Amino acid sequence: MVGDSALLLDELAQAKATLDAQRPTAVNLSWATERMLKAARAWVAAHQPAPAMAALQAFLLDEAHAILAEDLAMCHAIGQHGAPLIPERGHILTHCNAGGLATAGYGTALAPMRTAHSAGRTLHVYVDETRPFLQGARLTAWELREAGIPQTLIADNMAGFLMQRGEIDCIIVGADRIVANGDVANKIGTYTLAVLAQAHGIPFYVAAPSSTVDLALERGDQIPIEQRNPDEVLYLNGQRIAPEGVMAAHPAFDVTPHRLITAIITEHGVLYPPFAEALREHPQRATPPISKTP
Amino acid sequence: MVGDSALLLDELAQAKATLDAQRPTAVNLSWATERMLKAARAWVAAHQPAPAMAALQAFLLDEAHAILAEDLAMCHAIGQHGAPLIPERGHILTHCNAGGLATAGYGTALAPMRTAHSAGRTLHVYVDETRPFLQGARLTAWELREAGIPQTLIADNMAGFLMQRGEIDCIIVGADRIVANGDVANKIGTYTLAVLAQAHGIPFYVAAPSSTVDLALERGDQIPIEQRNPDEVLYLNGQRIAPEGVMAAHPAFDVTPHRLITAIITEHGVLYPPFAEALREHPQRATPPISKTP
Repeated sequence: MVGDSALLLDELAQAKATLDAQRPTAVNLSWATERMLKAARAWVAAHQPAPAMAALQAFLLDEAHAILAEDLAMCHAIGQHGAPLIPERGHILTHCNAGGLATAGYGTALAPMRTAHSAGRTLHVYVDETRPFLQGARLTAWELREAGIPQTLIADNMAGFLMQRGEIDCIIVGADRIVANGDVANKIGTYTLAVLAQAHGIPFYVAAPSSTVDLALERGDQIPIEQRNPDEVLYLNGQRIAPEGVMAAHPAFDVTPHRLITAIITEHGVLYPPFAEALREHPQRATPPISKTP
Repeated sequence: MVGDSALLLDELAQAKATLDAQRPTAVNLSWATERMLKAARAWVAAHQPAPAMAALQAFLLDEAHAILAEDLAMCHAIGQHGAPLIPERGHILTHCNAGGLATAGYGTALAPMRTAHSAGRTLHVYVDETRPFLQGARLTAWELREAGIPQTLIADNMAGFLMQRGEIDCIIVGADRIVANGDVANKIGTYTLAVLAQAHGIPFYVAAPSSTVDLALERGDQIPIEQRNPDEVLYLNGQRIAPEGVMAAHPAFDVTPHRLITAIITEHGVLYPPFAEALREHPQRATPPISKTP
């Protein structure tokens, strides 16, 4: 059985490497795979000389369910902390999907909107469609519709027009990684919104759980930006939208410098500048706080 | 025959009204229809008491060909004036289509790039795809490919990222209307590029013929913004890209305030701030300088 568990740990490590490589920019996924792997190793070490595979698998499933429950709780806490930042009858702009479909069911950027809406407050959300994958159009607009929160879908290039007209009161986005100085990597297009927000004096909020904070990096320019296949820009639903022979680029994320961010909302509260200090003092989400042993 | 010509003039006036109503934001189209109608009226008045319909039609066709030739000449002049603004080995960003497909064959925003390229200079163009109609992806990228000018297509929300990385040297866009103080109406998304350009210290140029200048309006906020059918955001090539029940908005143009514009390139030269003064002294394109009478 020792051989079996060693084999399984190897397989888990390989699976982790494969999964992590899919998201070089984000840290949440590798945070979770790291936690699972460490939990598995600790469990195997604690059950020598005869760790039972079925019991290990059940333990890992429990650990995954624990992560799920923690994520939901964190998102609800983000909602509680963030909802007061939304002005009365506010119009909020969001980008990509940082909702229940991207998390465990409640969302990060969408959490303050959900919480405010549940409290009976009136709000309206402008949803960037978020080219090229249209996560805003396909996912966020759907989530808001399901939640009964009034929404208006816009092409990404319409956000500046709406800010110029005074139709956006605040911006709330998620994050793929928050580094030590408060710089934030998020879906491509986020940086443009932050520049626009500053030009119009509109608050720009980032909502993310503490597992998104990566103090190992000092500055945002150290975050690897995933360059995806340009075909994802050139084709939509399998149909080519540009003539043959046209070249394209597809940087999938960008980095918003901390100076453009009004506040960062985590499950522990609302952090304000200077972010380097606020993040240093902010509780880290340890890995692994192995939730239990059978 | 007098009755026939009166009837034709009425029909022309109706056709002009129908055509003009399609483009409330732009002035070039109504400039051309106005010129044609005035030319027709003058011709009919000059050929009383027996204006011949066939001769009037031939005259109007000649007038249209004259507009075509003038437009081509203006676009080439814009190219001559604008090409020196493109830095050596420059990377230029453009938005929507202000090329030969939107004009009479050479383009306005694309003219400086064409002229520089024809002179053997090395340049590269980033093309905003320009949602929702994808004029950049479908038209501008095609034109550049045909002209042999290296191009990279990007989603609109990637422009900020490229500017942050120092990959864009200047921005050149067209215009649908330039008013007396230098404010410019152009395709939705242009304003966002201008804000980004200022934040990054990148020159922002507007290239347009003098027929785009409308001194009858003082400020950009007086320009009517065409609100198009939201279905144009919700559907792409007849396929719905957002769930049923999701609302959308489709402002088709925006206004870039003159303070964000580095220079305006017309067929007469390059105008710099203060634009109010430069435009007042700038030669207007008269309507109608009836080109000839048979």
